[in-house]
Amino acid sequence: MFELTKEYIEELKEVILVEDAVKALEMIEPLHASDIADLYDSISLEEARFLYLLLDSEMASDVLIELDEDDRKKLLKALPSDVIAKQFIDNMESDDAADIIGEMEEERQEEILSHIGDVEQAGDILDLLHYHEDTAGGMMGKEYIAVNAEWSMPTCIEEVRKQSEDVKEIYYVYVVDDDNILKGVLPLKKLITTPSVSKVKHIMMTDLVTVQPDMDNEEVAAVIEKYDLIAIPVVDSIGRLIGRITVDDVVDVIREEAEKDYQLASGITDDVESSDSVAKLTRARLPWLLIGLMGGVFAAQVLGLFEGNLGEHPILAAFVPLIAAMGGNVGIQSSAIVVQGLASNTLEIGGSFQKILKELSVAMVNAFILALVIYLVTYFWMDDMALTHTVSISLFSVVIFAAVFGTTIPLVLNRFKIDPALATGPFITTANDIIGLFIYLYISTLFF
Amino acid sequence: MFELTKEYIEELKEVILVEDAVKALEMIEPLHASDIADLYDSISLEEARFLYLLLDSEMASDVLIELDEDDRKKLLKALPSDVIAKQFIDNMESDDAADIIGEMEEERQEEILSHIGDVEQAGDILDLLHYHEDTAGGMMGKEYIAVNAEWSMPTCIEEVRKQSEDVKEIYYVYVVDDDNILKGVLPLKKLITTPSVSKVKHIMMTDLVTVQPDMDNEEVAAVIEKYDLIAIPVVDSIGRLIGRITVDDVVDVIREEAEKDYQLASGITDDVESSDSVAKLTRARLPWLLIGLMGGVFAAQVLGLFEGNLGEHPILAAFVPLIAAMGGNVGIQSSAIVVQGLASNTLEIGGSFQKILKELSVAMVNAFILALVIYLVTYFWMDDMALTHTVSISLFSVVIFAAVFGTTIPLVLNRFKIDPALATGPFITTANDIIGLFIYLYISTLFF
Repeated sequence: MFELTKEYIEELKEVILVEDAVKALEMIEPLHASDIADLYDSISLEEARFLYLLLDSEMASDVLIELDEDDRKKLLKALPSDVIAKQFIDNMESDDAADIIGEMEEERQEEILSHIGDVEQAGDILDLLHYHEDTAGGMMGKEYIAVNAEWSMPTCIEEVRKQSEDVKEIYYVYVVDDDNILKGVLPLKKLITTPSVSKVKHIMMTDLVTVQPDMDNEEVAAVIEKYDLIAIPVVDSIGRLIGRITVDDVVDVIREEAEKDYQLASGITDDVESSDSVAKLTRARLPWLLIGLMGGVFAAQVLGLFEGNLGEHPILAAFVPLIAAMGGNVGIQSSAIVVQGLASNTLEIGGSFQKILKELSVAMVNAFILALVIYLVTYFWMDDMALTHTVSISLFSVVIFAAVFGTTIPLVLNRFKIDPALATGPFITTANDIIGLFIYLYISTLFF
Repeated sequence: MFELTKEYIEELKEVILVEDAVKALEMIEPLHASDIADLYDSISLEEARFLYLLLDSEMASDVLIELDEDDRKKLLKALPSDVIAKQFIDNMESDDAADIIGEMEEERQEEILSHIGDVEQAGDILDLLHYHEDTAGGMMGKEYIAVNAEWSMPTCIEEVRKQSEDVKEIYYVYVVDDDNILKGVLPLKKLITTPSVSKVKHIMMTDLVTVQPDMDNEEVAAVIEKYDLIAIPVVDSIGRLIGRITVDDVVDVIREEAEKDYQLASGITDDVESSDSVAKLTRARLPWLLIGLMGGVFAAQVLGLFEGNLGEHPILAAFVPLIAAMGGNVGIQSSAIVVQGLASNTLEIGGSFQKILKELSVAMVNAFILALVIYLVTYFWMDDMALTHTVSISLFSVVIFAAVFGTTIPLVLNRFKIDPALATGPFITTANDIIGLFIYLYISTLFF
């Protein structure tokens, strides 16, 4: 396997600088497409274009697919439509081609489609462009192998041989009837191990797992993951085979979904990477910080409500950060468990009420232990029983409240079809801060 | 596809209650193994055992693999060793068998291994048990198909047919020399499409991507993901083929890795689900809360240092939650970007110093805007220029500090081979809280 080193990149840049095509090609020849795509982070657009034009058309297509969306857009803008169509799109699998064309402006799309030589390929791409990119239709490709259930095995094998010219890798052979309705699946293994006297319909597996084109891509990923599949057929509403989705696309969806949840929990919207521009990174983060800031201003007003009490007993202020932080921490923990449960569908069975009850039990145990610890700490440290009571009782209440709040919010958001991961992150911390402070200061008025 | 409903479960429970084996089998017959495994969340251990003993041995093995680790352990404890060995382990792929046996106590392991009828299977499992479960060796299975590079295609196909009896699904055929050194890969497609006159070595792909058994499982996942593979061969240090890893296991690793990072960011250790026991959920969460609590006590001491100033100007206390929250929010955002960059290896090239510089630019923009907003808010609301200056200048400083701190900590942890995701979550919030408060109160002494 190839490892990208600083030395390699420096050497490559020098070779490109003197436009030594032979040496450059020699250097990138042993690399996989995704290794070449990785190079793009370390070289300029000009350098990339030089390399790109050295590659043969199949490799160039593969690299194009592996590039970051942003890099790909820049590179494609620098190339004429007919080159894109003939050199890359013609050789690509239809799902990749549709993804890449779908990223362009409509005018450019039409221009490129009109330059594609293979009419069938152009038609497939046009069909796929109708589906939303976050659905099964948007993930599926048209490259699959289908045989008729009534055929004998030799006919079937002959047909597979013919069809496989257009398909990079075959994992399953799909079996359809005369109306193209999916009837079964033939694992490739069977083509080799089954005697030739059988008919396809007698050896196919009829135990089908399929998806429909409008299914959400995260659901498709969940199905493939659940049934440990390598590929899944896509059928329309009357069961006709219209495409197939392969596991490598699903791996990408799982990764993206996880990253999105993680970023939301950290208060980052949009899909950003550390290599993105300062402006993009700022846009992804500032809105959450402004929410946090407004929350802080609100918290200041809550503290203002109790200004009299705080002025008389300034020691109360010392525990403000503790109360606020604990509310936030417990709230995020509770939300995270619910968000993950919803993402992996393990929450489906059993009502929300039970979840809240269970979360309440966990919160009770935690709250009791935390309150006991802070009771002892303040008792021995402060020698002020009013403070000890205020802090420990309000910590107990804040932990319980935050747990219930943190559990409920994602469930409510999910009910209203809003991404529950929004509940974690700055929003829930901020809300918990404010309510927690109110609880603390209100309880303090009972003791002081 | 099957959807698990409350009605279905109620009916099934009734059928089990009256021990109607025929009806129960009829109900679960159309289900996939993973659907049957899902049932286990909703029924008791006794009910599960009743169902389990109705299944044929192959289905029972499949269900066993799909079960949650906790459920599986309970179920296996309720079954005798010879039943486990003969009914399940004998039929399982070696990697799954080794995983399941690896979860047991050593004594039980030996007992079960001694009951396995197929000596080759027992030997494979014993070999696999030597590898750590989080490595390529721990993920790999021994079920692969290998042919000799010198063979002709008809011999090769004959051999594939023979070997495939023991292998559930074939994705690639591996090509080795006489010493079992891996020389190439034959996609299954080639077996069908290549004329029989060729020799294996002339049509195999020699462009190999392999892993060694001691590679970390997250790295294996990254390789499979990067090169869009369905399976990857595992070779020892001199290149001999010793196993293969399939993409379905990799999907599990990616999912688990993402969940772990998410949980760490939310202050949850251990792999917990909302269906786990209250004790387990508490154990996963309490330690982080205690860290937060200690942080809060520490923050109280920092506030105590400035008690004089706070007593004279109680309005200062009102902005304590704002400063603490903003430090935490910015710190988590910065850490999250670094943690994700490290996880997806996009940070490799380009030094840490540049990352910190870039983070600093983003922080500058955010800090300036946030400070400006709070300047205006406090100016029009409070009519106290000392306060306005204190709050806006310290907010600016805290945001910058938190960004640098949040970027640096995961990089440092990573350098010392500690999981950088530990940096996110309560630890970084707590540290930022305390340092942020110190900055705020120190700056206040300059104006008040």
